Amino acid sequence: MSLNSIFQYFVPKDKKFFPLFEQAGSNLIDMAKLLQESLYSTDPAKRTQNAKQIEDLEHKGDNITHQIHLELGKNFITPFDREDIHALASSLDDVADFIHGAANRIELYKVANPSQAMKEMTDLILEATEHVAKAIFELKDLKNIRNITDSCVRINSVENKADYIFDKAVAELFEYEKDAINLIKFKEVLSAMEDATDKCEDVANVLESILVKNA
Amino acid sequence: MSLNSIFQYFVPKDKKFFPLFEQAGSNLIDMAKLLQESLYSTDPAKRTQNAKQIEDLEHKGDNITHQIHLELGKNFITPFDREDIHALASSLDDVADFIHGAANRIELYKVANPSQAMKEMTDLILEATEHVAKAIFELKDLKNIRNITDSCVRINSVENKADYIFDKAVAELFEYEKDAINLIKFKEVLSAMEDATDKCEDVANVLESILVKNA
Amino acid sequence: MSLNSIFQYFVPKDKKFFPLFEQAGSNLIDMAKLLQESLYSTDPAKRTQNAKQIEDLEHKGDNITHQIHLELGKNFITPFDREDIHALASSLDDVADFIHGAANRIELYKVANPSQAMKEMTDLILEATEHVAKAIFELKDLKNIRNITDSCVRINSVENKADYIFDKAVAELFEYEKDAINLIKFKEVLSAMEDATDKCEDVANVLESILVKNA
Repeated sequence: MSLNSIFQYFVPKDKKFFPLFEQAGSNLIDMAKLLQESLYSTDPAKRTQNAKQIEDLEHKGDNITHQIHLELGKNFITPFDREDIHALASSLDDVADFIHGAANRIELYKVANPSQAMKEMTDLILEATEHVAKAIFELKDLKNIRNITDSCVRINSVENKADYIFDKAVAELFEYEKDAINLIKFKEVLSAMEDATDKCEDVANVLESILVKNA
Repeated sequence: MSLNSIFQYFVPKDKKFFPLFEQAGSNLIDMAKLLQESLYSTDPAKRTQNAKQIEDLEHKGDNITHQIHLELGKNFITPFDREDIHALASSLDDVADFIHGAANRIELYKVANPSQAMKEMTDLILEATEHVAKAIFELKDLKNIRNITDSCVRINSVENKADYIFDKAVAELFEYEKDAINLIKFKEVLSAMEDATDKCEDVANVLESILVKNA
Repeated sequence: MSLNSIFQYFVPKDKKFFPLFEQAGSNLIDMAKLLQESLYSTDPAKRTQNAKQIEDLEHKGDNITHQIHLELGKNFITPFDREDIHALASSLDDVADFIHGAANRIELYKVANPSQAMKEMTDLILEATEHVAKAIFELKDLKNIRNITDSCVRINSVENKADYIFDKAVAELFEYEKDAINLIKFKEVLSAMEDATDKCEDVANVLESILVKNA
C-alpha cells in the first residue's frame, strides 16, 4: 500500500527505469561470461584482454547506475518505491564491482594458474547473473511474479553453493599452501568471487521486497 | 515529529515488529554464548559442534530478518519509521554475520589454540549483545528511554574496549608472529570479532536515532 | 520535485545542517594534512604524534555526525531530502574512518619506511578532501551549481589516479616483495588509503544526487 500502489492506475507505463535496469542486468551477464572465459583460458594474453573488457563494462555499468540516479532526481512518480530503485541500482553496481575486482586481482597478482575452485566460482557467478537478469526482465509487468520468485530462489541456491566452494577452497589453502604470498593471492581472488555471488543475493532480496510491496 | 508520531495515538500496540526484534536480539546472545564457550573450550570437537550450531542460528537470524522485511511490505503503519526498522533489522543481521564469520574462520583455518585476545573479544561480544537485546526489549514502550540510552552508552564502551584489544593484539602479531600464514589466520579471526562489536555499535546508533525521533 | 522543493520558499535559511557539514568537511582536510605530513616525515615520533591527533579528529568527526543525526530527529523541515542528509553525513564519516584507518595501521604494523606510493596516495587524499570541503561550502546556496559539479568531477579524477597508483603499487608488491608479512603491511595501508579516496567519490555521488533533485 505504498504511494506508488495508490497512484498505480495513473502511472504511465514506465519507459525510463526498466530499460536501464535491463541494460544493467545484461551487462552483468557479459561481464560474468568474460570472467568465466578468462579463467578457463590457458592463454595469459587472452586473460589480460578479457580483464580490460571487463573494466570497460564496469564503467558502462557505472554510467547506467548514474543514469538511474539522474532519472530518480527528475521523476516524482516512479514504477516502484524510490528507496527500492536506489537499492536495486546499488546492488547491481556492487555485483559489477566484484566481478571486476576478481578479474583485476588475477591480473595484478599475476595468478598464472587459476584453481579449479576459481573456475567453478565463475560458473556460479554466470549462473547467478543470468537469474538476476531474468528476474529484472520480468519485473516490468508484475504478471509473472512466480518467475521472479523462482529466479530469486535459484540465486539463493547458487550463493549457497558458492559459499560452500569458497569455504572448502580456503580451508584447503590453509591446509596445503605453504607459500603465504600465494595463499593471499588465491584467497583474495576467491573472496572477490564469493562477494560477487553475495551481491547477487542482495539483488534477490531487493527484488523480493519490491514484490511484497507491489504484488 | 515523524508521520509515526502524528499517528501514534491511532497505532494499535504493535504485535508484529517488536516480537521479531526481540527474537533477533536473543538469537544474538545465543550465538555469542556459543562463540565464547567455543573459544574457552580445549576440545576441538566441541568447537566444531558449536560452529555448526552458530551456523544454524545465523540461518535462524536470516529468517527473522526476512520476516521483518515481509511485515514492512504488508504494513502501512509501523511502530517507528520504516527506514529505521529496515536499518535496525540490517544491523542486527550484520552482528550475526560477523559472529558466524568469526566461528567459521576458526574452523576453516583450523585455529588450534585461540589466543587470550580472542577469548577476551568473545567476552566483549557477549556483553555487547546482551546490552543490544536489553535495549531492544525496552524499545516497545518508550517509557524507559533512560534504560535504552544506558545500554547504548555501554555498547559504545564495550566497542571501545574491543578496539583497544584488537589493536594491541594485531600490533603484537606483527611484532612477534614470524609465520605469515599464522599471522593471517589470527588477524582475520580477530578482525571478524572486532567487526561484530562494531556492528553492535551500529545497532546502538540506530536505536538512538529512533529515540530522538519518537521521544 | 521533492517535498523540500515544494516547501522551499517557506524554509528559513538553514542554520543547523550546513554549519555541521562545513565542520565535517574542514575536519577531513585537517586529518588529510596530518596524514600527509606524517608520511613525509622521517621522524617516527612525529608520525606517532600525528596518528594520535588524527584519532582525536576522528572522534571530533563522530561527534559532528552524531549532531547531524540529532538535528535530523528534531527537524521536520530540512534543507534537502532527509535520506540525502543521512547519506552525506555517513559518507563524510566513512572518509574520516579510512584516513584514521591508514594512520592507525602504519602505527600498529610499525611501518618504518613509507613507500613512494603511500606518499602519493596522501597527496591525493588531501586533494580529494579539499574538493569535498569546497563542494560542501558551495552547497548552502545553490547559486554556484557549476562549482559543485566541478569539484565532483575533480574528486572523480583524483579517485581514478588513486586507483591507478594503488593497482600499480600492489602489483609491484606481489612482484618484488618476498617477505609476506611486509607485503600484508604495505598492502593494507595502501588499501585503507585507496578506500579513503573511494569514499570521497561516494560523497561526490551524494552531492550530485542532491543537485539533481534541488536544482
